[in-house]
Amino acid sequence: MNIERPAIPSFQPPVRTLLGPGPSDVPPRVLAALARPTVGHLDPTFIAMMDEVKTLLRYAFQTRNELTFPVSGPGSLGMETCFVNLVNPGDKVIVCVNGVFGQRMVENVRRLGGTAVIVEDAWGEPVDPAKVEAAFAANPDTQLFAFVHAETSTGALSDAATLAAIARRHGALTIMDCVTSLGGVPVLLDEWGIDAAYSGSQKCLSCTPGLSPVSFSEQAVARIRARQTPCPSWFQDLGLVLGYWSGAKRTYHHTAPVNPLYGLHESLVILAEEGLEAAWRRHRENHLRLRAGLEALGLHFVVREDARLPQLNSVWVPPGIDEAAARSRLLNEFGVEIGAGLGALAGKVWRVGLMGHSSRPANVVLCVAALQAVIRG
Amino acid sequence: MNIERPAIPSFQPPVRTLLGPGPSDVPPRVLAALARPTVGHLDPTFIAMMDEVKTLLRYAFQTRNELTFPVSGPGSLGMETCFVNLVNPGDKVIVCVNGVFGQRMVENVRRLGGTAVIVEDAWGEPVDPAKVEAAFAANPDTQLFAFVHAETSTGALSDAATLAAIARRHGALTIMDCVTSLGGVPVLLDEWGIDAAYSGSQKCLSCTPGLSPVSFSEQAVARIRARQTPCPSWFQDLGLVLGYWSGAKRTYHHTAPVNPLYGLHESLVILAEEGLEAAWRRHRENHLRLRAGLEALGLHFVVREDARLPQLNSVWVPPGIDEAAARSRLLNEFGVEIGAGLGALAGKVWRVGLMGHSSRPANVVLCVAALQAVIRG
Repeated sequence: MNIERPAIPSFQPPVRTLLGPGPSDVPPRVLAALARPTVGHLDPTFIAMMDEVKTLLRYAFQTRNELTFPVSGPGSLGMETCFVNLVNPGDKVIVCVNGVFGQRMVENVRRLGGTAVIVEDAWGEPVDPAKVEAAFAANPDTQLFAFVHAETSTGALSDAATLAAIARRHGALTIMDCVTSLGGVPVLLDEWGIDAAYSGSQKCLSCTPGLSPVSFSEQAVARIRARQTPCPSWFQDLGLVLGYWSGAKRTYHHTAPVNPLYGLHESLVILAEEGLEAAWRRHRENHLRLRAGLEALGLHFVVREDARLPQLNSVWVPPGIDEAAARSRLLNEFGVEIGAGLGALAGKVWRVGLMGHSSRPANVVLCVAALQAVIRG
Repeated sequence: MNIERPAIPSFQPPVRTLLGPGPSDVPPRVLAALARPTVGHLDPTFIAMMDEVKTLLRYAFQTRNELTFPVSGPGSLGMETCFVNLVNPGDKVIVCVNGVFGQRMVENVRRLGGTAVIVEDAWGEPVDPAKVEAAFAANPDTQLFAFVHAETSTGALSDAATLAAIARRHGALTIMDCVTSLGGVPVLLDEWGIDAAYSGSQKCLSCTPGLSPVSFSEQAVARIRARQTPCPSWFQDLGLVLGYWSGAKRTYHHTAPVNPLYGLHESLVILAEEGLEAAWRRHRENHLRLRAGLEALGLHFVVREDARLPQLNSVWVPPGIDEAAARSRLLNEFGVEIGAGLGALAGKVWRVGLMGHSSRPANVVLCVAALQAVIRG
């Protein structure tokens, strides 16, 4: 044996309070579900559970879309699943960029041989519908429109209903990133006319990271069926994945992540028990509590009030504070994780998440008190 | 709200004994690890755990490859990660096909715009090195060579050392599927000269499905660095993934599946505690016990003796037996899952897995006794 046996003990993670941009705190019920005995991915009981996951996801997304299921990978793979199936080489896609995740959409379009028409807004601003109108007017041959509902890198919420209506008027299908919005603020796929949406398990659903709920409208499915070139990804080809996730006869495609899906099922059951409206209200109320506390500390929000995400609060780091050192102290002295800035906002902001199970009054007062200790010394 | 709240209770899976082609039984220590409290994917304690996972995987793969880590998705995504990074449009790839997973490799090559030169062997046979020699002689412009070490669809083990040596002599890099072999039979990446390998978490490692350990040699990394066209997949682009999995400064790429990685860490710690040689010996001994029991029942193996995988035993379904009904009885009366045939072997064979934690004498006698009850009675 060339490589010797390493002597590494079991990993015992510390207990944190997760108030960053995700993962959020995973509730004990979901952790317990993750540890239930593994069954086979074609076990009849597991197939029945998959059907329940689809039903629960349709409720969370507020859609009747048959093609609604969790991709076996993180949110960025869910994003890619939407783009790799819908974008054909040569397609023109209008993409709104007001943060990191809009940029990532542009990357997806370009790597797939599409042309990205970029509608740019400042980081921290919502997408400006007037700019989208102008982009469609200048590019009438656009097939697809993509935007981020809740920009995790800034905390800005865009007006999905208005944006999707513009795209529909111009004959384009809409792809929406709702990684951070699903479960925290209204996400109404059918009412808004969203054709493809992807989310993540680890934000307002409070499951462990690693699964990406997606949903596709009938028009999106028709577009995928009409493709002239094969989907470049075997793993993400919806024509193949569907044999496993729907229909009468479930055929093997890949081995589903069994225990993580137990966790997602439980987190969706918890969301349904609470009810969407109650969950949205809770996120809003705890956001207002947090806002009062942060403003009392003299902190200022990055995003204007009417576009603020209740589940992700970006504030400017006060002058004279070493932001990384402050986050380290929060983590090491109080066990509280908050997020750093990304991209254009790196080093300039903190991102405080109150997502899913993390959105509780106890966490608000803990966060404000710990920040106070760190800022005031 | 258009979609009403579903009333779905928590999911309580039955307790099974998993003796199919994977997932295998997940030991209590791994299930317990899955349920530990979630930390952030950039938490210093989590980054340290990721380094341990890489060290433990290098031991399992017997490699010094720096680029060794688990892809955040199932084994088929690990497969795609190897092909999407190494295959450029127009590349010629010799692919050995002796079962389902070799065919899937061909699909990958074609969707990426490569040319697949297929070396075919009958299902149940190992790859014939003489045919590989002939394929290289006829295609001296071949850049890559790909084969499946342990064909999960048939139970055949191929001679990886001999095959990789042929490719090296002809100047091609070797991609090896070791989804089912890793941890069950010797997998010696460095000694054999394998340039890219992928495996799965749910076979002989006995973790929950959903992660795919991969490893790339320096030559493979050099080839990836020298690409002229961008990797078509943003999510799988190793140039980007690496910023998160290695180097001094760990930068965000995607949110890692935190709890599943706790599980993989624990399963690799268990493997290191037992030691690779002991694990291989155990798989071999339980295979011999199973063979004696199955042959006593009059069952015949699909694969010839010197190419049989100890961890995956394919046997012909005896005449007059309804194979699907027999599997249902095994599952419903005894809680035992065994696998059906795939592709060319569908309806004709059973696949009995003794992988990882499932490879125990108690499971051998349970399986043989339950099969006896179902076949004879």
